[in-house]
Amino acid sequence: MSEIIATYLIHDFNGEHEKKAESIALGLTVGTWTDLPHLVQKQLEKHKGRVVSVTPLSEEDRANRYFNRKVYRSMIKIAYPSGNFSNDLPAILTTVFGKLSLDGEIKLIDLDFVGDIHKAFPGPQFGITGIREKINVLDRPLVMSIFKGVLGRDLSFHNEQLKQQALGGVDLVKDDEILFDQEQTPFIDRIRTGRQILKEVYETTGHRTLYAVNLSGKTFELLEKAERAAEAGADALLFNVHTYGLDVLQALREHDRINLPIMAHPAYSGAVASSSFYGVSYALLLGKLVRLSGADLSLFPSPYGNVALEKEETLAIAEALTKDEPSWKKAFPVPSAGIHPGMVPNLIKDFGTDSVINAGGGIHGHPDGAKGGAKAFRSAVEAVLIGKALSDAADEDEALSKALELWGGL
Amino acid sequence: MSEIIATYLIHDFNGEHEKKAESIALGLTVGTWTDLPHLVQKQLEKHKGRVVSVTPLSEEDRANRYFNRKVYRSMIKIAYPSGNFSNDLPAILTTVFGKLSLDGEIKLIDLDFVGDIHKAFPGPQFGITGIREKINVLDRPLVMSIFKGVLGRDLSFHNEQLKQQALGGVDLVKDDEILFDQEQTPFIDRIRTGRQILKEVYETTGHRTLYAVNLSGKTFELLEKAERAAEAGADALLFNVHTYGLDVLQALREHDRINLPIMAHPAYSGAVASSSFYGVSYALLLGKLVRLSGADLSLFPSPYGNVALEKEETLAIAEALTKDEPSWKKAFPVPSAGIHPGMVPNLIKDFGTDSVINAGGGIHGHPDGAKGGAKAFRSAVEAVLIGKALSDAADEDEALSKALELWGGL
Ligand SMILES: [Mg+2]
Ligand SMILES: [Mg+2]
Repeated sequence: MSEIIATYLIHDFNGEHEKKAESIALGLTVGTWTDLPHLVQKQLEKHKGRVVSVTPLSEEDRANRYFNRKVYRSMIKIAYPSGNFSNDLPAILTTVFGKLSLDGEIKLIDLDFVGDIHKAFPGPQFGITGIREKINVLDRPLVMSIFKGVLGRDLSFHNEQLKQQALGGVDLVKDDEILFDQEQTPFIDRIRTGRQILKEVYETTGHRTLYAVNLSGKTFELLEKAERAAEAGADALLFNVHTYGLDVLQALREHDRINLPIMAHPAYSGAVASSSFYGVSYALLLGKLVRLSGADLSLFPSPYGNVALEKEETLAIAEALTKDEPSWKKAFPVPSAGIHPGMVPNLIKDFGTDSVINAGGGIHGHPDGAKGGAKAFRSAVEAVLIGKALSDAADEDEALSKALELWGGL
Repeated sequence: MSEIIATYLIHDFNGEHEKKAESIALGLTVGTWTDLPHLVQKQLEKHKGRVVSVTPLSEEDRANRYFNRKVYRSMIKIAYPSGNFSNDLPAILTTVFGKLSLDGEIKLIDLDFVGDIHKAFPGPQFGITGIREKINVLDRPLVMSIFKGVLGRDLSFHNEQLKQQALGGVDLVKDDEILFDQEQTPFIDRIRTGRQILKEVYETTGHRTLYAVNLSGKTFELLEKAERAAEAGADALLFNVHTYGLDVLQALREHDRINLPIMAHPAYSGAVASSSFYGVSYALLLGKLVRLSGADLSLFPSPYGNVALEKEETLAIAEALTKDEPSWKKAFPVPSAGIHPGMVPNLIKDFGTDSVINAGGGIHGHPDGAKGGAKAFRSAVEAVLIGKALSDAADEDEALSKALELWGGL
């Protein structure tokens, strides 16, 4: 038997949550039950939704204040037989949170894929291990950086930024997610020239950096465009999955002739996941769903910066990306936004070695430029892994010292 | 000059909204400004975002209570030059609400497509006028009904439901949005047999009913599948656009060999639009965006039923679907959920003649079955249009009389 168990957080004003759970389990599957003839019940038994559990939660002040009355809260779990839907996320999301998303204060917290349906979703092609092998970095968090202020700038500006970041020793560089197809830095040119630059840096420093190019444009042109990217020698794809749909990510992952690591960007995900009453949890959206659809890396707001999530939420995202699953490789958690080298000890404490430390301003804003910023991050990572205080490491490393002085952490 | 002007509702704790608006306008376009050399400023001028307006709003008790402190509110408008993005909604949504959707209490309320960029989006192929012509109903709200409890049932059950609804005189019947590809009622079989039944009903009653089949499955199979639907004689497509992506709807609309009316279902849209602090407004999501992407009809929760939106929100959706636009035909507003014949006077008062009255339980739950339910709706519509009270019309119409007795409205 294969089924999907959905976990929902419910807020309402009457607290009859057993009844509500029953009405969801029927309403989103066979419609009605007790008034059906016995023979029809037998026929529909295998399609009937099932209430797995109803767990009352304690009252929450904030909810009571918002609605200005006593609000009852529960976590409920409903099982949906997999025979009710085709094995694709649009059908699954429509079943478990289609009409229901419009039905009062209800938030989709988790989905469990029980049985064979697990195998309908590919998970990452490379995963943490595969990405590590590509760059031959097996034992430390990766360091990643982001192009900055490249909109409207030409290819030589773009290339120089790439070079400086790589020279400092970052493992991954990603396009700005708001860089789309435009004349100044065309998609295939970015890939070709970027590849050449990273090759030169590798020949100089012996360090390999991967460049994730932003795959954008109309949905039905993406597969062919990604194929062209692969042919042109792209290292990886950055993808704004939440403005396209998770099934599009899955198609990119499953396509025979693409075979590139995919970095899922969280753009637009806040529209779905920010509310405590409605929408979908961050752990499900930026964790489990992007992982099972095939992302090798998932970016999300770190708990430290100005664009920040609650720490608990970020840890739940990372857990969903990295916990053992029967059919899916692990994906890299990439806590992002507001990261500087002084945060590296906390980042490694919170997200472990199997994570990516990702910075924009914390790289480009370094007094010695992007190269110095990247170097400072790499030194900070090294220090933490050998149990050395950053301040001690800074004594022997000017780039790190300048970073800690500027942003704190000394 | 072509640009998109985004309107946002902001809640925050310091009220420095001019400053915030400036930082959005720069941060989501050229990144920084004042520290750029003059020559670079000249080069980037045409990419720079612009603050159009910042309008402080009065305090709101509910927001203050929720955050337990004084919350400042504003409506701000930012213009983004269209040269910054490719002409597709994933790029546009990433620009105007990508990272920003994760940045605190901010909700995307509206998007204005200024200048040529309007033409990059097709709008409905048929629109209100085209749909009316297909069924030759020019002067009244259409009546629509929904299959009920068809999951797990066979084709003869499905067909009988279709027949009864059509015999009662509904103009449109839509698939249940949770009916996907399965063995009992395959997609092409539903289309072929449904077409035959509706032809027979037409030959009996002279009334034409369109059947909207649920187009579902993997994204990259949809175009070919929709083509096959068209070849098999489908009348219209139902599409769960919000679990796929608006750009997929647009591709269906723009495809040469499909040419079928598209009914956009609101499944999953509540995940994006329910919150008053985050996400996207219903009027933008279920109104303007589905219209410009090509939906001919847009379903949304009515303000009357148990799955209900605020009346103001539903009117804003309808307005976005039907207001005059330079490049887009009008789309039918379809207020849904909890509709029974006694509500027809209010529906027509609120949504006008250019709307669709859509019912599920209010059709199938009629004492005389779906045929009686459909008949009651048609009589109610006729009564309202000639200025007759429903109670008077019910004197001459048994189906309407039974409906009003059961659900109220006498
Ligand atoms: Mg960025
Ligand atoms: Mg339904």
